[in-house]
Formats: sequence, C-alpha cells, structure tokens
Amino acid sequence: MPPLDRPSRRPIIGVMGPGAATPELLGLAEELGRLIARAGWITLSGGRDAGVMAAVNRGAKSAGGLTVGILPNGDCRGVSAHVDIPIITAMGSARNNINVLSSDVVIACGMGRGVAAEVALALKAEKKVILLACPAAAQTFFRELGGDLVSVADAPAEAVALCAAAVKNFK
Amino acid sequence: MPPLDRPSRRPIIGVMGPGAATPELLGLAEELGRLIARAGWITLSGGRDAGVMAAVNRGAKSAGGLTVGILPNGDCRGVSAHVDIPIITAMGSARNNINVLSSDVVIACGMGRGVAAEVALALKAEKKVILLACPAAAQTFFRELGGDLVSVADAPAEAVALCAAAVKNFK
Amino acid sequence: MPPLDRPSRRPIIGVMGPGAATPELLGLAEELGRLIARAGWITLSGGRDAGVMAAVNRGAKSAGGLTVGILPNGDCRGVSAHVDIPIITAMGSARNNINVLSSDVVIACGMGRGVAAEVALALKAEKKVILLACPAAAQTFFRELGGDLVSVADAPAEAVALCAAAVKNFK
Amino acid sequence: MPPLDRPSRRPIIGVMGPGAATPELLGLAEELGRLIARAGWITLSGGRDAGVMAAVNRGAKSAGGLTVGILPNGDCRGVSAHVDIPIITAMGSARNNINVLSSDVVIACGMGRGVAAEVALALKAEKKVILLACPAAAQTFFRELGGDLVSVADAPAEAVALCAAAVKNFK
Repeated sequence: MPPLDRPSRRPIIGVMGPGAATPELLGLAEELGRLIARAGWITLSGGRDAGVMAAVNRGAKSAGGLTVGILPNGDCRGVSAHVDIPIITAMGSARNNINVLSSDVVIACGMGRGVAAEVALALKAEKKVILLACPAAAQTFFRELGGDLVSVADAPAEAVALCAAAVKNFK
Repeated sequence: MPPLDRPSRRPIIGVMGPGAATPELLGLAEELGRLIARAGWITLSGGRDAGVMAAVNRGAKSAGGLTVGILPNGDCRGVSAHVDIPIITAMGSARNNINVLSSDVVIACGMGRGVAAEVALALKAEKKVILLACPAAAQTFFRELGGDLVSVADAPAEAVALCAAAVKNFK
Repeated sequence: MPPLDRPSRRPIIGVMGPGAATPELLGLAEELGRLIARAGWITLSGGRDAGVMAAVNRGAKSAGGLTVGILPNGDCRGVSAHVDIPIITAMGSARNNINVLSSDVVIACGMGRGVAAEVALALKAEKKVILLACPAAAQTFFRELGGDLVSVADAPAEAVALCAAAVKNFK
Repeated sequence: MPPLDRPSRRPIIGVMGPGAATPELLGLAEELGRLIARAGWITLSGGRDAGVMAAVNRGAKSAGGLTVGILPNGDCRGVSAHVDIPIITAMGSARNNINVLSSDVVIACGMGRGVAAEVALALKAEKKVILLACPAAAQTFFRELGGDLVSVADAPAEAVALCAAAVKNFK
C-alpha cells in the first residue's frame, strides 16, 4: 500500500492466529492487542470468538483500540464481542486473502493451517510478516519462502517494535 | 444479523451508489453521509474515490463519522481519502456481496449495474433496502423482487429515518 | 473474453435461474440444456440440485453435453447429479460473479434475487444477457440498465439462436 | 467430498505449482498431466499460461485429458491454451481456496508462495495433499502441520499411485 497517498490513515496491523490456542499463546495475543492499541493502530483479525482472534481483540479493546474482524461466515454468528467492525464475507477461508491484503503488516501469533495460508498469501502480496510464537519448522520454511519479508519476534513488544519500523512512513 | 448478540455494536449503514454521478446525486450522497454520522452509525461503502462512494464518505467525515470502504482492487490505489478503514478484497465485483452482508441496512443512492447487483444480493440475504433517487423502473422491479424488504425514500432525511426504525433494536 | 486468443475453446453458456421454479419453467430450462448441448457448447450453472439449475443440467446431459456447476457451498453436498465438473467455491452468493464472468453468454431463465444479481453483474462485466421467461418489470429494468447488451427471448430455441449469434466468432 | 453421493463423477486432481519453474520441474509437471489424463481423471490447476500450470495442462491434453483452470483474473487473458474450461474468478489469490476445495486430491508440484497457500488451505479443508519436488523445509513444515493428510512422492508416477489410492472409492 502506498502510504504517501493517504498520509492520515491509521496503520492496520493484522494479527493472525489459530482458533484453538494454549493459555500461554492467548496471553501473548492479548498483550499484542494491548500494545497495538496503545501505538494508535487498528487491529485486524479473522474476527471469530475463538483462540487468538478473541484474545487479541480483547486486549485491543482493553486499551481503547479499534478492532476490525473479517469473518468467514455469512452473518454475525460467532463474532468476537470485542470486534467493533465485523466484515461479513461468507467466503470461508478465502477471506484469509482479504485479512492480509487489508493489513499494513501481518503478525502470525502462533501457527495453524489457516495461519499458514495467511502467511503464504501475505508473502505472495509482498507484505511484511512477523512470526511470533511459531515453531522452528514454520520459521525455517517461511524464511526460505519469504526472505527479507519475514522477521521473527520473541515477544509481543518485539513484534510491535518491528511493526513500528514497518509503518513509520505513515507518520 | 442478530442484534441481541452484540448489543453494544454500532450499526453499520451501507450506502451503495454509482461511481459516475450527477452533481445532484453527489449532493444527496454527501448529505446522507452527514446524517448517518450524526446518528452515530458507521458508514460502509464500496470505498472508491468516485461518485457516490467518494461523496458519502466526504459527508460522513465532515460530521465526524467513521467510514469503512470495501475495495474491489488488490491494493489501496483508488481508495477515497475519506475512508478510515479500507478493506482490500482484490475480488472485483464479487466484493459487492461483502458490502451488503456487512451492512445492517442497505441504502441504494442512485442506480447502476453494480448498485443493482448489490440491491439484489441484499434482498437475497434478507436485508432491508432503501431506494433513494432510483428510477421508476428500478423501484417497480425491486419492490416486486423484495416485497416488504424494500422501501423508497424521497430524501436523505427520510432514508435515515427508515434506517433508524430498522436498527432501533440495536440500542 | 477475446475469442481470437483461444479459437478452439468451446463456448460456455451460463444459464442462471431460481432454485424454486414452476413446472413450466423447469420444462423451459430442460429444453434449454438440451439445445445448448446439441449446439456443442458447455453448460454452466449455479450447480445446485434445485429448480432451474437441476433442470438445465439434466437437459444438457440427456443430449450428451458437458456441464459445469459453480457451487456456493464448501463441499459437494447439494450438487446436481447432472453436473460433470463441480467447482466448490465456499463463497455463497459471491460466486454469482464467477458464474457470469466464466460464461461467454448469460441466459436468465426465470427471475429471482440471485438471478437478478447475476444479470446485473453480467452487465457490469459487459456480457451479453438473454432474458427468457422473465417478468415484464425485469425486462423493463434490465433493458434500461443494459441497453444493447440485453435481449429478450420468447422460447429456448430463440435464446439459443441469440447465443449462436453471440459466439459465432468462436468458430 | 462424499464420493458415494455421486458415484459416476470423474475424480478431479488439483495440481498446484509455481508460475516460474525450472525445465526439470516443467518436465515433471508435464508427465504428471499425462498420467492424470491416462488414469481418466480431470486435471484442475490455477490455469495460467505459465510454469507448472501451463506444463501440466499441456501434458494432460497430449494424452486426451480434460482440463479445468481456475483463473485469478477477470477475463481470459493469460489463460493456458491447454485449458478446456477456464473458470474466471476475478479474485486473485483468493481463488486458491477454490482450487483446493474443487480438487479431490491436491498435488503440490514444486513450491512457491501461492503453492504454500494452496497446501495450507487444502489441509484446512482436510484434503489429501501430495508433495512432489518440494524442498525439505516444506516437507518438514507441512508434515508437521497436516499429519497423515500429507504424503511425499519422489516422481509423478508415485504421486499418481497415491492419488489412485485416495480416489479408489469413486469407482
């Protein structure tokens, strides 16, 4: 996305993560949401009331952020209560492409089949991707696939610092 | 959409209109955007920097509203400068279905080929549709197709009053 | 679609019609399928085992034709048994745009909300559309919307003759 | 897909591969297309006139097969000349989900960003995936992600033998 065309738009950070997650991963996602909101950015996710999606939106709203959810279903059923703007696609996993195209930076928070598709689609669209709490095999594969587009973060704060570098031209 | 599940969400009003429009229609669209924003609702449109889409977003922002644009292209090129949240679909006119599914009420402001598809898709999804500044043949056809789902408004204020009735259960 | 690029491809005729239909309309759809198959063309439809979709595919197969169905669901459930090639989109009514973009000519056989969306999307894509067994209000509206792109046929044979004229450059 | 519902349908084998490929990979893809056609199956691909997509369709047609291409663009430009049935999606990489949902078995012939998305989406939909000529890091990652759904083949003949096992209930 050419930032100079729309200098005043707030950056949109896409957080992709599995619908089923460990308590530890949920904690990371919630912290990520808080930090994204505090940075003044918009949080975009898959929008479902499950796993990383629910946690990142809860975190973002706890810090006064704005949240967008791109839903796979054809109505609002199953949307996280912490999504301000539910986008209803009715297109299942094909909506994963919208998730990443609409994000200025993509953070994978944990790994799963849907998340893997989102990382690959983000790289196809030449988006910056940050891997947080992803297994070694995912890191190796996506670094090979995406080269310099892929970074690995060890904690939410590091992921957000990488986002800040990526969107600094928005300011 | 079942409003009781998410009582605190702000209603999303979808305004669909042609990319090429007369000055009179642009005036109606801009007024519509202002009134939607003043009602405290979110404005959703096709997001392009053209015709009714540009005008309704300009009106909404002039009254401090929040604007969402569902873009047909694969990047931010051509997005209206008055869209706060551009959703990048890369799916051309198939995004018209997302436009209407994501709207609690759909207003057709003027008529065209894309707008006609949006009205038909909205009716398919059992959404309330308000026709503003639509030709007689469109009114006749869509009333026959949609029955009680379709209303005709003579001015932006009447369209917004019809919206208010449709979303009153949100409050 | 530029026919000269692919001179040997067989024309694809899209037949769009409601999932709920009268016996008379089903008879027209079945005859349409037979005539399309006899002309050597491929029949494309929404693919469901219902109404006009089921009838046109049955007709096409009874005359040895090849049938493609573009399904709204995420798996093969509900596909017409007379579809040779089910395309599984999992994108609901957004697949209507694929239906018309993949068709060299679009025939609306009867009218309904989904069909109306397909006719409008076909016109948006500058496709030839033939209206068969459509109510007067639909004829008036779509002729106004589509101009020379829209023809009205009184019987399946006339619809097929109009198709033949439209795809003659394929031969 | 429940094969028992439609016992007479011919299996559809999806071959996913990069648009830029080495001569060696193109040779594998062409052989794969020939073997799929000889088995009496339909070949489905991304449909573009590039790389593995072009090669697998050329191979399939050389053996008298039937070929379906699911195109990312909004018209027939760039379609492989060896595609019998071009499906025009106008939805860019979101069409990757259609590619895999419409395939009874998915073969990844080589690896790339689009292919990686297709493998992940196929696993999300619980489809069998066969990896042919994929790097070690891809094999490790996708086996971890997909478990028993993922097989690795060393040659086109082995990939086709794995397909035969997967679709044997169709006969």
